[in-house]
Amino acid sequence: VGHFLGKNRLSIGAVVQSVNSPDRELVRVQDLTPEKADQLIWLRARVHTSRAKGKQCFLVLRQQQFNVQALVAVGDRASKQMVKFAANITKESIVDVEAIVRKVEQKIESCSQQDVELHVERIFVISQAEPRLPLQLEDAVRPDGEGEEEGRATVNQDTRLDNRVIDLRTTTSQAVFRLQSGVCQLFRDTLTKKGFVEIQTPKIISAASEGGANVFTVSYFKTSAFLAQSPQLYKQMCICADFDKVFCVGPVFRAEDSNTHRHLTEFVGLDIEMAFNYHYHEVIDSITDTMVQIFKGLRDNFQTEIQTVNKQFPSEPFKFLEPTLRLEYTEAVAMLREAGVEMGDEDDLSTPNEKLLGRLVKEKYDTDFYVLDKYPLAVRPFYTMPDPSNPKYSNSYDMFMRGEEILSGAQRVHDAQLLTERAIHHQIDLEKIKAYIDSFRYGAPPHGGGGIGLERVCMLYLGLHNVRQTSMFPRDPKRLTP
Amino acid sequence: VGHFLGKNRLSIGAVVQSVNSPDRELVRVQDLTPEKADQLIWLRARVHTSRAKGKQCFLVLRQQQFNVQALVAVGDRASKQMVKFAANITKESIVDVEAIVRKVEQKIESCSQQDVELHVERIFVISQAEPRLPLQLEDAVRPDGEGEEEGRATVNQDTRLDNRVIDLRTTTSQAVFRLQSGVCQLFRDTLTKKGFVEIQTPKIISAASEGGANVFTVSYFKTSAFLAQSPQLYKQMCICADFDKVFCVGPVFRAEDSNTHRHLTEFVGLDIEMAFNYHYHEVIDSITDTMVQIFKGLRDNFQTEIQTVNKQFPSEPFKFLEPTLRLEYTEAVAMLREAGVEMGDEDDLSTPNEKLLGRLVKEKYDTDFYVLDKYPLAVRPFYTMPDPSNPKYSNSYDMFMRGEEILSGAQRVHDAQLLTERAIHHQIDLEKIKAYIDSFRYGAPPHGGGGIGLERVCMLYLGLHNVRQTSMFPRDPKRLTP
Repeated sequence: VGHFLGKNRLSIGAVVQSVNSPDRELVRVQDLTPEKADQLIWLRARVHTSRAKGKQCFLVLRQQQFNVQALVAVGDRASKQMVKFAANITKESIVDVEAIVRKVEQKIESCSQQDVELHVERIFVISQAEPRLPLQLEDAVRPDGEGEEEGRATVNQDTRLDNRVIDLRTTTSQAVFRLQSGVCQLFRDTLTKKGFVEIQTPKIISAASEGGANVFTVSYFKTSAFLAQSPQLYKQMCICADFDKVFCVGPVFRAEDSNTHRHLTEFVGLDIEMAFNYHYHEVIDSITDTMVQIFKGLRDNFQTEIQTVNKQFPSEPFKFLEPTLRLEYTEAVAMLREAGVEMGDEDDLSTPNEKLLGRLVKEKYDTDFYVLDKYPLAVRPFYTMPDPSNPKYSNSYDMFMRGEEILSGAQRVHDAQLLTERAIHHQIDLEKIKAYIDSFRYGAPPHGGGGIGLERVCMLYLGLHNVRQTSMFPRDPKRLTP
Repeated sequence: VGHFLGKNRLSIGAVVQSVNSPDRELVRVQDLTPEKADQLIWLRARVHTSRAKGKQCFLVLRQQQFNVQALVAVGDRASKQMVKFAANITKESIVDVEAIVRKVEQKIESCSQQDVELHVERIFVISQAEPRLPLQLEDAVRPDGEGEEEGRATVNQDTRLDNRVIDLRTTTSQAVFRLQSGVCQLFRDTLTKKGFVEIQTPKIISAASEGGANVFTVSYFKTSAFLAQSPQLYKQMCICADFDKVFCVGPVFRAEDSNTHRHLTEFVGLDIEMAFNYHYHEVIDSITDTMVQIFKGLRDNFQTEIQTVNKQFPSEPFKFLEPTLRLEYTEAVAMLREAGVEMGDEDDLSTPNEKLLGRLVKEKYDTDFYVLDKYPLAVRPFYTMPDPSNPKYSNSYDMFMRGEEILSGAQRVHDAQLLTERAIHHQIDLEKIKAYIDSFRYGAPPHGGGGIGLERVCMLYLGLHNVRQTSMFPRDPKRLTP
């Protein structure tokens, strides 16, 4: 196998197999500005589009969200044969080009680099794409409804997901997942500054801690095990083990046969647990401040990504207050009743009612983010601390973005005796949760926490409408590939 | 349920249920220095030890790795009853104390806060530990062999792991897992600075990509699925999808019935994948620099943790070179042969030979970290790029710390045609890896990467001898709990 650099000015190169490193700098597309005018540069990029026209071939060369026009024209430097060769390079192929950067008189509106174009002198194919693509990138970024009259296609979600390796190349996908990477980083950096320690919790567990519903079973050598529905027990063990404040980022598994816009069978949990001194509102304050730091970080550092996504999926900018709005459950019920909803004091919120409440809160307080505190005890898990002043309620809370739940949390019962009573009340088999209850027998500080769904945060922050848009390789009851 | 603050100066309080927040600052043990002398402070801590002596009771109060002596003595502020109460508080209980900070004339050698003690005025039990602990913290931090003559116990590993919530409270465990948190942070921060994007890859997969051995099976609604043995395929898809440089941190599952000091069935993978320009040594350079940044960050910011672990498990400081030493496989074979090992050119390294090689390299080059490059093609997976200059070898590498492998990586075959040939050569069913091969059909840049085992890095950096010491809740063929 030979090297990809032929002696000719055009070549379908052999596979780059690390034979040697030419002393050659590759320029980034985003750095192609008028300052580089008249320089001879090398560039590696994808062929985004290609259009031959007589003795010329116009290519658009792309790197992620950036692209530049390149011209191969018959003349001193390029032969007729080379123009033909260039015109035949399949879309999405990766090429190396040697070219002179030239300023253009009229801005090239269709490219991110509007002030320059490349006059190509040599071109090599580094990796050739098959001629027939399963989806077209232009179609995949077209806003719904646009170009319908011209009969232009959009790409449906299954086609996107089946061909994710191409769909992820769109400017929209690039922006979504770069922003998602930012959410994780902001989450961790904020908590690290607050003195939290990152922990790693096991995903294969021996017993389904919360009663056994919706759990995936794993065959484990000669026995069987389960996939963790949350790191709950392990976070709490770390608190009982004096780590004081912990967080973890990792997969969470739910064997729920829900085929909705917001359910996945595997998603990424951003989990927090912390000891507090006197009141679980200390926990709420830590979590809401973390969310606010994430929102600010996105607003300040990811405007390009937000704007890019908005071009395809328009939405209102995400609004939040400082300090975060905290409503009590009873207030929410009152607001809903005033809007005509019939519900009992201790009824749980349905998804439509959560959405309606989100709209009412937005109207009244002008925020897309708020905390709903003091849920009815009956609708929460057994390990939730009851409200000391009203046994019908609990020291628990959900957090909402644009009317959809992104976090569920609570003060946890840290006393083995009370925990046993609550488990009995919920008719849970004490044998099955013995290890969990025993964790609290050797001194446990009061503590609370919550779990955030990463994909939902990204979906709702960006005003998207399906959690599969913010999961790189989503898993649902009907999808296990790619 | 009432509030835990009684009117008395001592109380077994009710469970902290967030009734109210007293306007009271809790001081941290580590902040108890002579500057605080004669101040009246509040403190929440565990009772580490308790010793009654006539009209006095000496407590050692602990917060993580810090502790301070506290004195309850009959006098103006404390009654005889209170001393008796204090003496009866079980070890590991959590207490709130109000106390005056007093300078001491003679340093208290047994405590981290050697210059002050607390004169307790009020004491409340926030959470009471059961009187009989399954293990003693003093025993759990005792170096092997120490105190054997006095008949003092150490704690065996199964007892530790069975009672992890107590074992994790030791100074050694606190240090190990705070350092581990640091490794993750240094890994991500270094790569983020280098322009890498963090990705989240699915753990439930539809097909076992590497042939199907050692894979856990999951029942998935009406079908079955597998747990990912690595994020390999997904990292590579991200490269084919133009993310250019990616990393991920997440669980990795191996259904291998290996009961050794260094194998886990679930561990945390620190994974890297990147496109390169001309030579896969660009990838090696990025990874080794990342490791060096981790080693430097630990050395500079985690000395307390390193020293703490060393007290119980003495080891030599970890040595590394800049730039990192890179040896070729043939050189390693020559060194081993010179040391008397008989092996063929293309034989894989056995674990004992890896260790021996580590010692030889340490003697010759004075480094605990190095790269072994150009492994025989035959011992590597089918997707490994062959060496263009010698088809018996490959563009692949392992990295070693103290003679044990912590990373395996390679240039990957990015050409669908060559990949198909390699799979056929390995007698892999092409149908099963169709989706994988198809990922490379639409233009793929040359790329490489590797996967690092977090627990191994921590174990070997600290010179520990069992990977279960650096996994909070380890999983092996025989352990699924806690």
